[in-house]
Amino acid sequence: MSLTDVLSRIDNDLPAATDRLMELLRIPSISTDPAYKADCDAAADWLVTDLNSLGIAAEKRQTPGHPMVVGHLDGPGPHLLFYGHYDVQPVDPLDLWDRDPFDPAIEETANGRVIRGRGSSDDKGQLMTFVEACRAWKAVNGTLPCKLTFFLEGEEESGSPSLVPFMQENADELKSDLALICDTGLFDSRVPAITTMLRGLLGEEVTITAPDRDLHSGMYGGIAMNPIRVLSRIIASLHDDTGRITVPGFYDGVSEVPEHLRAQWQGLAFDHARFLGDVGLSQPAGEQDRTPLEMIWARPTCEANGIVGGYTGDGFKTVLPSKASAKISFRLVGDQDPVAIRQAFRKMVTDALPPDCTAAFSAHGASRAGAFETTAPAFEAARKALSDEWPDPAAYIGCGGSIPIAGHFQNILGTTPMLIGFGKDDDQIHSPNEKYDVESFHKGIRSWARVLDALARR
Amino acid sequence: MSLTDVLSRIDNDLPAATDRLMELLRIPSISTDPAYKADCDAAADWLVTDLNSLGIAAEKRQTPGHPMVVGHLDGPGPHLLFYGHYDVQPVDPLDLWDRDPFDPAIEETANGRVIRGRGSSDDKGQLMTFVEACRAWKAVNGTLPCKLTFFLEGEEESGSPSLVPFMQENADELKSDLALICDTGLFDSRVPAITTMLRGLLGEEVTITAPDRDLHSGMYGGIAMNPIRVLSRIIASLHDDTGRITVPGFYDGVSEVPEHLRAQWQGLAFDHARFLGDVGLSQPAGEQDRTPLEMIWARPTCEANGIVGGYTGDGFKTVLPSKASAKISFRLVGDQDPVAIRQAFRKMVTDALPPDCTAAFSAHGASRAGAFETTAPAFEAARKALSDEWPDPAAYIGCGGSIPIAGHFQNILGTTPMLIGFGKDDDQIHSPNEKYDVESFHKGIRSWARVLDALARR
Repeated sequence: MSLTDVLSRIDNDLPAATDRLMELLRIPSISTDPAYKADCDAAADWLVTDLNSLGIAAEKRQTPGHPMVVGHLDGPGPHLLFYGHYDVQPVDPLDLWDRDPFDPAIEETANGRVIRGRGSSDDKGQLMTFVEACRAWKAVNGTLPCKLTFFLEGEEESGSPSLVPFMQENADELKSDLALICDTGLFDSRVPAITTMLRGLLGEEVTITAPDRDLHSGMYGGIAMNPIRVLSRIIASLHDDTGRITVPGFYDGVSEVPEHLRAQWQGLAFDHARFLGDVGLSQPAGEQDRTPLEMIWARPTCEANGIVGGYTGDGFKTVLPSKASAKISFRLVGDQDPVAIRQAFRKMVTDALPPDCTAAFSAHGASRAGAFETTAPAFEAARKALSDEWPDPAAYIGCGGSIPIAGHFQNILGTTPMLIGFGKDDDQIHSPNEKYDVESFHKGIRSWARVLDALARR
Repeated sequence: MSLTDVLSRIDNDLPAATDRLMELLRIPSISTDPAYKADCDAAADWLVTDLNSLGIAAEKRQTPGHPMVVGHLDGPGPHLLFYGHYDVQPVDPLDLWDRDPFDPAIEETANGRVIRGRGSSDDKGQLMTFVEACRAWKAVNGTLPCKLTFFLEGEEESGSPSLVPFMQENADELKSDLALICDTGLFDSRVPAITTMLRGLLGEEVTITAPDRDLHSGMYGGIAMNPIRVLSRIIASLHDDTGRITVPGFYDGVSEVPEHLRAQWQGLAFDHARFLGDVGLSQPAGEQDRTPLEMIWARPTCEANGIVGGYTGDGFKTVLPSKASAKISFRLVGDQDPVAIRQAFRKMVTDALPPDCTAAFSAHGASRAGAFETTAPAFEAARKALSDEWPDPAAYIGCGGSIPIAGHFQNILGTTPMLIGFGKDDDQIHSPNEKYDVESFHKGIRSWARVLDALARR
């Protein structure tokens, strides 16, 4: 009846748990491709059946897209919600896979044993770490230690179009004390992590038009305004020489990293030389007075994600183009307001236009950053539980990317999200040959058993 | 036996001359498309036969590509070479033509009668103005007034790959006192022109590489160098705020417009507001201390003709790209050295690279500007002859584009080129519905009769 028994059960059951994950991985639940609609449905059915086998009243809940799987189990202690997603990314380019992405297998590699297959890490493998922890707990104790709600989505890899409406319509049912989200990673192989800072994201597309048609640069070169030149000047002006972003008011709401996190980050063995060296770089290119971890976790950014204008094929054409456009994104932190920044960016661009130029804008998403207060007792309890399982103490880390679901729990349900996951940087999620370390799976299950135990005792 | 008789003969023979041009226009001699190889050959044959009928010993001369037509006629007076080209541009997009491009016809338009069809202006119609002038002269006088060499090319619209080798191999045969080139335009409907300044052209493609693969801007945004940002800064730095180009040494060899040309240009009714207004612009965008005609004829330029990097499809991807590239061209004037400017440009870009960035360059052509000394007596004689034919006096004008053949005559043969043509800005050369005004054709033939007469008398 002790945690030790649960952990032993997990160790003994690992082959069977792996087999169950393999079953789920064999279902090609690619949410973005309508050809796989029935497979998404089948993955949801598989989860309903599996949760039912644990005594959890789970069912498929229809949406305009793929169904949600929602299940409840009454119990003692705090009410915990668990979120994961059963859909996966497409597998193109298929010829870069070393095996059928939906015929998963255990492979031996130089870095240990891995489960190879689409979704092994993102997010079926991660999702099943929690389910298997519950299974072991139930097998040993006959019951689960907390009141539980499972909330599993099938559209995360295709923009989660049904998620917010579903959460709004079912807010009373989904509200809980804490939302556990298993879709993030370890800090490194030795250091587990709770992700407590997520950057927001603002996307803008800007198209500069100068002449109303493409011109010949022999006839018009030197007298006609060139939109590539105008756009280049605008992009060049978005950062000053120290790497600071120049959009007026951009840093409103950007706060410094709290002292206790800063101290902890200083203790993390982040090897930025290796992080950059892995992709052919050596120098941190952000604001020059910031540390590398601040640059990727805690500082806002402005990046050009794409640019196009004029002739871009083979050879050369002396065209003087009518239009040039760029996709610009901003990663946001703290209380930065994406709506205000969008307006300031558009005004800055418009104000910088020379005569005869116009700018057209398209909005592509706007989400605020998330920062979750780690001083709540549950966070320290979970951190201690994770620290017990892994070689080194767990860290509160940031994530440079955006996980909108975390903000939705906070904003729609008033439920604090806690992001714990066991993925590694080299899992190749969204890419060919996705894998999940057997260690991630095994110690992930054990980690959740410890976290459940710790949260139940509070 | 007088010029008046020749001009009368031209007027009376215009219907027959037009029929002959129509015959030539019906031959689809598209040089760039191998499917039309036999047609290019047929056009050359047609010209050989026509020149032979004038008593000119003309023949096809083989090249690795399409044949040259070369013909000689001994005679009194100066030795004049005439250059034109019998090949034409492709006709795509065919659906934008109002008639079969190779079924030419006379059409009535709001601006007068036009000959509609591919090649009507560029260059078959222009070429035939000279041939018809010779025919009328011969019919009236029984002989021609000068020693003549015809040199007609069939690859001008596909980069003239055989031209320079052919000129080098046959330099002694082609050397002459003056090379008449009929491939340019009038200044406007009232003002004929001798084009005496052509800009050179230097093309460069630059690719900036920062990380060695595309990155996710959530993970790397803020710490990884973004090549679009680097490239934008470089393009933005190529001009200062007054429009002056900043490449070191760029203006070496750029001379001011000679006073006699400047005075003449000031008398030309160049309506830059209309020139720009036709393409949706209003403000001359070049060096702010220069006149519009200087900007397009006499000043060097730097333009970005194309730029591409990152994700450019529909929607948005938060990629942080590995590469970004641009095609940059420079129009050159005076004695600017394209080789030196290429080196200076590459050094400027390389010197501006931040850490971790590399730049790769591809060369796309390098030709010097051409400027032809108009003080030679032949120029003033030709200008007076043109002025006698048209409502207003002829002008010495510049051309913003590049006509490499002119430089080849000067550099390979030591023969001064004289560019006289009768095209108009609205001829839609290289585009659907190409046309040549009947007035251009008729007065073009008369103009050449006058020019031949004037040059023969010197």
